[in-house]
Amino acid sequence: MHKVTLLGTGLIGMFYTMTLQGQRGRDQVQVAYSRTEERAAKFAQDWEVPRWTTDMEEAVRNPETDVVVIGLPNNLHQEAVLLAAEAGKPVLCTKPLGRNAAEARAMLDAVERAGVFSGYLEDLVYTPKTLKSIESVKNGSLGKVLWARSRETHPGPHSDWFWDPEQSGGGVIIDMGCHCIEIGRSFVGKEIKPVEVMCWADTQVHPIEAEDHAIGLVRYENGAIGQFEVSWTFRGGMDLRDEVSGTEGTIWLDHFLRTGFEMFTTTGLGGYVAEKAEHETGWLFPVGDEVHALGYVHMFTDMFDAMDSGRKPMETFYDGYIVNAIMDACYRSVKSKRWEPIDLEVWRGAVKTEAESKEVDYDEKSVLIKKEKMPDGRTKLILKDKESGKVIQKIEE
Amino acid sequence: MHKVTLLGTGLIGMFYTMTLQGQRGRDQVQVAYSRTEERAAKFAQDWEVPRWTTDMEEAVRNPETDVVVIGLPNNLHQEAVLLAAEAGKPVLCTKPLGRNAAEARAMLDAVERAGVFSGYLEDLVYTPKTLKSIESVKNGSLGKVLWARSRETHPGPHSDWFWDPEQSGGGVIIDMGCHCIEIGRSFVGKEIKPVEVMCWADTQVHPIEAEDHAIGLVRYENGAIGQFEVSWTFRGGMDLRDEVSGTEGTIWLDHFLRTGFEMFTTTGLGGYVAEKAEHETGWLFPVGDEVHALGYVHMFTDMFDAMDSGRKPMETFYDGYIVNAIMDACYRSVKSKRWEPIDLEVWRGAVKTEAESKEVDYDEKSVLIKKEKMPDGRTKLILKDKESGKVIQKIEE
Amino acid sequence: MHKVTLLGTGLIGMFYTMTLQGQRGRDQVQVAYSRTEERAAKFAQDWEVPRWTTDMEEAVRNPETDVVVIGLPNNLHQEAVLLAAEAGKPVLCTKPLGRNAAEARAMLDAVERAGVFSGYLEDLVYTPKTLKSIESVKNGSLGKVLWARSRETHPGPHSDWFWDPEQSGGGVIIDMGCHCIEIGRSFVGKEIKPVEVMCWADTQVHPIEAEDHAIGLVRYENGAIGQFEVSWTFRGGMDLRDEVSGTEGTIWLDHFLRTGFEMFTTTGLGGYVAEKAEHETGWLFPVGDEVHALGYVHMFTDMFDAMDSGRKPMETFYDGYIVNAIMDACYRSVKSKRWEPIDLEVWRGAVKTEAESKEVDYDEKSVLIKKEKMPDGRTKLILKDKESGKVIQKIEE
Amino acid sequence: MHKVTLLGTGLIGMFYTMTLQGQRGRDQVQVAYSRTEERAAKFAQDWEVPRWTTDMEEAVRNPETDVVVIGLPNNLHQEAVLLAAEAGKPVLCTKPLGRNAAEARAMLDAVERAGVFSGYLEDLVYTPKTLKSIESVKNGSLGKVLWARSRETHPGPHSDWFWDPEQSGGGVIIDMGCHCIEIGRSFVGKEIKPVEVMCWADTQVHPIEAEDHAIGLVRYENGAIGQFEVSWTFRGGMDLRDEVSGTEGTIWLDHFLRTGFEMFTTTGLGGYVAEKAEHETGWLFPVGDEVHALGYVHMFTDMFDAMDSGRKPMETFYDGYIVNAIMDACYRSVKSKRWEPIDLEVWRGAVKTEAESKEVDYDEKSVLIKKEKMPDGRTKLILKDKESGKVIQKIEE
Repeated sequence: MHKVTLLGTGLIGMFYTMTLQGQRGRDQVQVAYSRTEERAAKFAQDWEVPRWTTDMEEAVRNPETDVVVIGLPNNLHQEAVLLAAEAGKPVLCTKPLGRNAAEARAMLDAVERAGVFSGYLEDLVYTPKTLKSIESVKNGSLGKVLWARSRETHPGPHSDWFWDPEQSGGGVIIDMGCHCIEIGRSFVGKEIKPVEVMCWADTQVHPIEAEDHAIGLVRYENGAIGQFEVSWTFRGGMDLRDEVSGTEGTIWLDHFLRTGFEMFTTTGLGGYVAEKAEHETGWLFPVGDEVHALGYVHMFTDMFDAMDSGRKPMETFYDGYIVNAIMDACYRSVKSKRWEPIDLEVWRGAVKTEAESKEVDYDEKSVLIKKEKMPDGRTKLILKDKESGKVIQKIEE
Repeated sequence: MHKVTLLGTGLIGMFYTMTLQGQRGRDQVQVAYSRTEERAAKFAQDWEVPRWTTDMEEAVRNPETDVVVIGLPNNLHQEAVLLAAEAGKPVLCTKPLGRNAAEARAMLDAVERAGVFSGYLEDLVYTPKTLKSIESVKNGSLGKVLWARSRETHPGPHSDWFWDPEQSGGGVIIDMGCHCIEIGRSFVGKEIKPVEVMCWADTQVHPIEAEDHAIGLVRYENGAIGQFEVSWTFRGGMDLRDEVSGTEGTIWLDHFLRTGFEMFTTTGLGGYVAEKAEHETGWLFPVGDEVHALGYVHMFTDMFDAMDSGRKPMETFYDGYIVNAIMDACYRSVKSKRWEPIDLEVWRGAVKTEAESKEVDYDEKSVLIKKEKMPDGRTKLILKDKESGKVIQKIEE
Repeated sequence: MHKVTLLGTGLIGMFYTMTLQGQRGRDQVQVAYSRTEERAAKFAQDWEVPRWTTDMEEAVRNPETDVVVIGLPNNLHQEAVLLAAEAGKPVLCTKPLGRNAAEARAMLDAVERAGVFSGYLEDLVYTPKTLKSIESVKNGSLGKVLWARSRETHPGPHSDWFWDPEQSGGGVIIDMGCHCIEIGRSFVGKEIKPVEVMCWADTQVHPIEAEDHAIGLVRYENGAIGQFEVSWTFRGGMDLRDEVSGTEGTIWLDHFLRTGFEMFTTTGLGGYVAEKAEHETGWLFPVGDEVHALGYVHMFTDMFDAMDSGRKPMETFYDGYIVNAIMDACYRSVKSKRWEPIDLEVWRGAVKTEAESKEVDYDEKSVLIKKEKMPDGRTKLILKDKESGKVIQKIEE
Repeated sequence: MHKVTLLGTGLIGMFYTMTLQGQRGRDQVQVAYSRTEERAAKFAQDWEVPRWTTDMEEAVRNPETDVVVIGLPNNLHQEAVLLAAEAGKPVLCTKPLGRNAAEARAMLDAVERAGVFSGYLEDLVYTPKTLKSIESVKNGSLGKVLWARSRETHPGPHSDWFWDPEQSGGGVIIDMGCHCIEIGRSFVGKEIKPVEVMCWADTQVHPIEAEDHAIGLVRYENGAIGQFEVSWTFRGGMDLRDEVSGTEGTIWLDHFLRTGFEMFTTTGLGGYVAEKAEHETGWLFPVGDEVHALGYVHMFTDMFDAMDSGRKPMETFYDGYIVNAIMDACYRSVKSKRWEPIDLEVWRGAVKTEAESKEVDYDEKSVLIKKEKMPDGRTKLILKDKESGKVIQKIEE
């Protein structure tokens, strides 16, 4: 059983608390910190949190708590992590870890120097669908992963600081690209090195400095591609989907807009529909249990179980650092309009991944390109002559 | 925090334990009872349950536990409930409550006489989608509910006793009709009296005495219809869907086969797909988190929270009794081939529900039947003359 | 190439003409008949039909046309068919054939006596999805068909006469039950005799005499069930779905509301969405090509090709008569509240269908009930002892 | 009524003929040309084509035909088009128009010099769903289009020449990128100039020279992005989906794998499932009417109707040329690893598209960034101060 110091009482702090204190959980928020008295007090009352404060250091050092959970704006992560490390407490930090790789690196170093447990609260890698998919991919259900698309789009965030690059570190890439990049990495394999990125970003709709729409390709050393699509311009709710393609299979996940829950109403009296839902009548697509569908439940279970059993959680500050480094390369690519190498000062995965041979002999003379059953029941082969390189087709009777 | 005596270590006992002990829960199974030593011991080991026994009474009376959870074959529910009532312990019993209304009534009387807390473990009413839908319906999103279809079908149950009417009380109606009937009742409104049923059942596929396919209509006093479709003959996995129609809206739920998780694999190496899944390659439809999707998590939360706060849970033995009474009428209807009244010795809902008037005046002379916007943008009205009863149409310019 | 006399210029006449004259078709409407001059003239102008008239007999006898297509209210079908038979012209009649079996029988007799080609315009049996499914079922993809559900629901028809039982012959059963019944029959097998029906119907919403919601079960001689669900009370558009279950498989069809076309719009400026669509903003579900999706294209192709090659079409007046006879039994069942036999004076299918044995020997002593692969990879068998009838389970190692 | 010279009798020639001669069409294939006698004769017999030949010029010049339809490998398009132009006959050419822009330009010049009608047979722009979507977008349902993703992937083509860059002009970009690029262009607006592309391509699976997987971004002058994803490495069938995002809405289309037709079969006896389907048992996703779903029907209707009425079809050789020019830039970008300008010697669209201002005043001092209704019913505003540029939030009571 853990007692938590929660830093930040916005939407994310609320989701974390709903998760921890919902469904007969044994862990509790003991102290809530907010920058304003009014919000801290209200939050404590709403969620039956015993203590609140507007002093971050006091919150971190509170002797009744044994773990610090950070749900603050991005520009405050580093300060909070350093306080936790100094206090010698395990620290769990929301995504993205830093506004850039340098900040993330500093946080990683701080917790490792202090020897405290660190968890990177990348919830979308922990959705029940994603966890089961990743396990299935590891078991070989898809063969070698070739491509993973992760998409997160909605009409824009709910708090002012997201829109201000000074506080957030960027726009929609920083806000949601971090999710998609880590999802892609999880499917391709975290031990495979991401080597370069190509990214497009633009400010298509909102009167802001930061990008509100971005698409990026992350190329891994083994040739696999992680594709992310993030936008604050999407209309129709929140679109959270992943697609994974491998040599032997395919996975399609829809986490939010089409999950087997469809409602039509002319009255709109049903109440809250779902995060970022844009309308209240007509066809609606609610989510059964949002904190569960978004991965919060399994994420905190992994974090606290890891702490209890002395192992590392699935997502650590190291992972957060890798993601920040990839995003840094994305921002460079947007400007340079070319593929940019990913600069990884710290890399703990495989040193070198060899590409596999694609050649499968059909017979002594030829290599098999494709085998296909035709409508008439016969099998058609596409072959390449080994010497001439010529492509021919052949019907197997 | 509760310590549980679990009676029964089959599939349902395993699901209950996975639920209670998963995700940082504070409640624990303390004693497991099985009819055979081998299974009791293995279960205790697998799930880290401190004690096990093959003596049901001993398990119930164990002083370390404060609640009894029953996951036994249907013919053992009554004995177990009576033991718990005698022991003065809260008792939660799996579905169906009894093999018939008489047994259910005896159990209801026993817990009420003993003054112990009783919970009916009807998990499918507690799925996150169902809970949110019921709340939404109560808020008025669908107007008046007219019809609710609930469907549960798969290729047949996994244990011998389900197939033996002596132990189970019947066939697929007893096994899964109970789910669908209570889902229908929850959408129509539990305070509305179910008055009669029409049911078809047949043994279409398996060499058994009991029915393996059934369809029933439950008519409620206010004219609403609860339709259930249950089968042990379905191919393709487990089909769990609900549809609700009201005067102002519609709800469609898919709990299992189409929930936004789709996988194609040629290797079939992904591992366990989902309960009752029938194949391992090609297109598969896994479920992210089964115990959550099937309602177990929210069900036990309601049960234990209710116990802790001294309120009744959403589903009590009274509800289980109503469901059994409806199923009794179904079995009579299958034989008589006509609508059969539902015999409710105990009824605690509304005494009489008046049908609402359907007449909405269009003007002094006519009643509005329908209003429709046409492709050309004009509005068409279908009206009934109050005096002559004649139907006419009229274009509103 | 055919030249058509079209009787009726309402919605159905328009759909028929769109079909015939769309997509480079070689057949044309030559004469249009409507009861009012205004509508006849306007229709002829809109669709470039050379001639129009308000005299039905003149339209039928017009020497320039070689086939009569009936798209009139139900109470005018018989008169129109008799005129066509007298004129010796092939006649295609919209659904339902008659207001009851007696009328349908009279029409069947008339065309057979006159020796003219007759086609029953049951479009929903001809949708591309349905045609391919029926063929697939005939090929054995589903084994023996056990159950077929067909559902057609929307918020109510667009013309006054549908709402008046005098003109239409009933309510929603006559309007749409005819579709669903013939779909069920097509999947079960048209040679299998439908023997009895159980039907519930009610007037739940509209201030009319006729039923606006009905559910029925048609039992076939081989034990298969055709289930229909029809309603004028549905909200959310037009719901057209079929489900078929067999011993070896399952088919699910969605013809209208979820066909892979999804649109969200805040402006609603997209134009016509789909038949019976109820709203213009938010999430909409248009249909790509309605006349094609609803079966009109394949239906007329079959009809005219049959005429050209001297064979019978897939749907004849005989089929229309069977459907009317089933609906007659439905109306009797609604009143009697019991299963009612289907009275078939004319029956041209199989005389007697034997039920198949369900017993499959596992070994000398026992019969196999079920075989299931378990999560741990082992196979579990449910067996019945031949002598005692006792059910046991066994693990195959 | 048209009589057609069909050049090429492979899969595409078969699809074209099925379309022309299916469903009571008035147009017919009169002469079929194939490079081998055997295939020409067999095709003519299978499809009841009166004449066949292995002499392309003879086929084109046949006096009985009035239009030439080209369904040949890419390296033969130019020769065939020039023959048709010389013969003064209308010519319809399959996609892609050329192996590169130079070839396409030569063909465009040839038909324009000869003054013959030219149609570019880009079927996927003509699917019923796509046509209705494009019309809807033009009507304003999505506001300004910001992004359009078009995806076409399957396990690889069925004929040898696709795999040989010499004959085809490239790999999967040439084979399917042409579809996706024109779909994107159609949604963004064909009058908007495509200015530059970024493209990744790789040979991930097959032992070939050409690329078997590619992803590209086409940037339009108004800032919109057309994204294409094409692959010969996909497993699970043929994936044809489009997504369009605009300032006011969203469109999602699925043309092939999820269209409301789902089948589970243990026997696999249903027959042909769908183009590129990979398996025969388990869950299958057939397509109702493939030639219709893939746009062939509406495409030929537009082509022949255009010819008959003297207007241009929706897709001309000019469009084919633009697509080739975009693909040329893609291949350059794959090599240079940077955004590459699109070289358009011929451009007939808008000369210059101005970006629209994104600034909407909230009041004198501030600009509106976002307006959102919160769960508690209040409205939250995100505003930017005009002078300082600072972002703030404000609750409207």
